[in-house]
Amino acid sequence: VAIDRLSEAQIAQALNSLHGWMHAADCRAISKSFCFRDFSEAYAFMTRVALAAEKADHHPDWSNSWNRVDIALTTHSAGGITRRDIDLAKIIESIAL
Amino acid sequence: VAIDRLSEAQIAQALNSLHGWMHAADCRAISKSFCFRDFSEAYAFMTRVALAAEKADHHPDWSNSWNRVDIALTTHSAGGITRRDIDLAKIIESIAL
Repeated sequence: VAIDRLSEAQIAQALNSLHGWMHAADCRAISKSFCFRDFSEAYAFMTRVALAAEKADHHPDWSNSWNRVDIALTTHSAGGITRRDIDLAKIIESIAL
Repeated sequence: VAIDRLSEAQIAQALNSLHGWMHAADCRAISKSFCFRDFSEAYAFMTRVALAAEKADHHPDWSNSWNRVDIALTTHSAGGITRRDIDLAKIIESIAL
């Protein structure tokens, strides 16, 4: 199913309803860094995100270094940011709370 | 416990006993990319590595994008590559088989 890229205005509006997600210029993704107490907490968070991502069939590009998790969300098939990225960002926020 | 950095010769020798790990010049890490059938397989691999890393108290710097996992191993406290990185690389190889 094709899904449309969001406009810059739509992205800005969506980011207003999120917390701390950034959309760097020239960057076809929204991103956020999360820090935890240690690796165990970071990986527990990642595992909950992994399950949610698999369920949504929409997966993050992400990296981890000990207590830190950097997440970038983009829709590769659309070549940019779509509603699916915003939806996954909201789920990730609910997990990180 | 302080642990010594390996010399270039020691690193080269250790990489000979591994498969496909690279040590880029100017890069204080050894690295390897792993590809799997899908996200589920990639994350299952990551979870086994995470458990081994936590057990060894030595953690990878790594990233994931769907079926791909890029792993870099370094010993931050030593400012370079140590025996701990080689040992973890061997464990990761055994998991990836």
